[in-house]
Amino acid sequence: MSARATSERVRERLEEYGAAARERMREYLRDGQSRHAFYELVSDYPERGGRALRASLCLATARAFGAQPTEALNSAVALELLHNAFLVHDDLEDESEERRGRPTLHLRHGAPLAINAGDALAVLSLRPLIDNVGMLGSRLALRILEEAERMARESVEGQALELWWRQHHVTDLGEADYLRMVLKKTCWYTSIYPMRVGALIGTRDSVELDRYLHFGFFVGAAFQIQDDLLNLVGDEASYGKERNGDIWEGKRTLMLIHLLNVMDADERARLSRVLGTPRLERTPEEVRWVRECMDRYGSIDYARQVAHGLAGAALHEFWLVFADLPDSPDKDFLAALPTWVIERT
Amino acid sequence: MSARATSERVRERLEEYGAAARERMREYLRDGQSRHAFYELVSDYPERGGRALRASLCLATARAFGAQPTEALNSAVALELLHNAFLVHDDLEDESEERRGRPTLHLRHGAPLAINAGDALAVLSLRPLIDNVGMLGSRLALRILEEAERMARESVEGQALELWWRQHHVTDLGEADYLRMVLKKTCWYTSIYPMRVGALIGTRDSVELDRYLHFGFFVGAAFQIQDDLLNLVGDEASYGKERNGDIWEGKRTLMLIHLLNVMDADERARLSRVLGTPRLERTPEEVRWVRECMDRYGSIDYARQVAHGLAGAALHEFWLVFADLPDSPDKDFLAALPTWVIERT
Repeated sequence: MSARATSERVRERLEEYGAAARERMREYLRDGQSRHAFYELVSDYPERGGRALRASLCLATARAFGAQPTEALNSAVALELLHNAFLVHDDLEDESEERRGRPTLHLRHGAPLAINAGDALAVLSLRPLIDNVGMLGSRLALRILEEAERMARESVEGQALELWWRQHHVTDLGEADYLRMVLKKTCWYTSIYPMRVGALIGTRDSVELDRYLHFGFFVGAAFQIQDDLLNLVGDEASYGKERNGDIWEGKRTLMLIHLLNVMDADERARLSRVLGTPRLERTPEEVRWVRECMDRYGSIDYARQVAHGLAGAALHEFWLVFADLPDSPDKDFLAALPTWVIERT
Repeated sequence: MSARATSERVRERLEEYGAAARERMREYLRDGQSRHAFYELVSDYPERGGRALRASLCLATARAFGAQPTEALNSAVALELLHNAFLVHDDLEDESEERRGRPTLHLRHGAPLAINAGDALAVLSLRPLIDNVGMLGSRLALRILEEAERMARESVEGQALELWWRQHHVTDLGEADYLRMVLKKTCWYTSIYPMRVGALIGTRDSVELDRYLHFGFFVGAAFQIQDDLLNLVGDEASYGKERNGDIWEGKRTLMLIHLLNVMDADERARLSRVLGTPRLERTPEEVRWVRECMDRYGSIDYARQVAHGLAGAALHEFWLVFADLPDSPDKDFLAALPTWVIERT
């Protein structure tokens, strides 16, 4: 299949999975909306759309393993709610200004209500997981909660790592540090957990879930690197965040870490100084200079190569762990994902 | 029993319950501390002490209903962890400067890491609830999770109400608004949920939990009013927060709401203006003026009376719902609580 046909196929599946997840998510949010105007804040990010990648991965894996279409729906919805909770708090922590093409929640409503709305979204994500009992039984529902606890812990620890590096102006970082951070911050909740829970539900807890760690890690890491690349080279309108925002925020992307490791000593000292100033004191000239260095030192090409390598490794893993499953559109989706992740714009 | 003897008795029991809860909580925190320096932030508030009132209420109720001392320990620990998560985010939302006699977490480490540490504490509170399965079985563990989800939802909704009033400069509030907010923001997690879960565990889910709503509401509301009174008239060293901090923050306390309802029109307009300015633009003169008005219009005496009334109602409720339980130090603790709540300094 050509790359374009792959992308088209993935997009179609994402739309189908996403529509199902969003519909159920709205039911959970509607319950709160009747109680207080505050729920408009809580619903803001979920209502802005987004492609529901995490929910889709969960639904696709469950169905590829033979689950009924609705059996993984609650788990997928919980994941989307938690994802939105993370986005609200991440935007505050990163002082981001745009999310999905519109001002971030804290810019619209102030930090206090935004922190609280993030907390509310996290709390709301518990309800569908508890409601799993009715459809899946106590044992399976508890296993999913156990997985969710692990995933949420990995995510906050990964986010802490990244914040720590920025707060303490850490610059002596290598690719291994980066990949460990991304494993925890991104991969666990974006790809590893959705697939583990999908497999749990599809097999009724009868497979070794650690088999899916590698595929999830490779896909998730390639996804994160591509996301960070789009922040530098993507089309701002379709990307939905401010261009070069990651450089403004001093985010430790693979490109920045590569640059720190390859540039000459004088430039490295200058970059460290730039990273040591508070975001609001950074100048457009400094940001432009960092961006130019990334081109000059090949950091962007390097990151693209790493993302391609990870996607290749994911394809290989796919055949190791999913090849035995019967053919289905869901299995096709999983097979096409590594390519889509690095081709998307 | 004299008020002093009651207070002494409650203090002793709090120390015993609190020691057990803190020891188990440290085990849960220690697991993370080995992973990353970031866990020092996570452990900061829990390590500052505090009287573990919520954990104590949960342990006391469970034991008063015949549970073994350790059966409610995980639920009590989860509650303390979540309480600390709330404190970290509340301090950010309120721009508070002191907590338990020391600078707040965001003043020590910046908002990004503090938001994340609060999230981590909330996530950590899930683990002991999942570990309940081993000791209490799946059914009871799931019932407790269900109660926890309700409690957390009530709490974030209550906090949202209060933040909303401040953010939108709402001043047309009455006592009923205040009590509804406190029911959600304070009572659910401070007293209603701890007792519901204690009763759940002690009776193996064989009583109607709504019986304990009134006692929990009355005790929790009296507790919150007394807490807000101590902010105005308490001894700063033993209270652990800055004096008059609530006035600086524009917090809608019962005293402030009383004042808004009884002062003359000119003063009311002036107070509305003061409440409409950002915290950092408020002056010490304005704060002192608000404080003087509260004395002049009897707002402090009024709030004391309401707290006494609520404590009396709680005593009455105690005899309705707990009188049949066999005598025990735990039952004594619950009986003494309404008095202690309004006598403590």
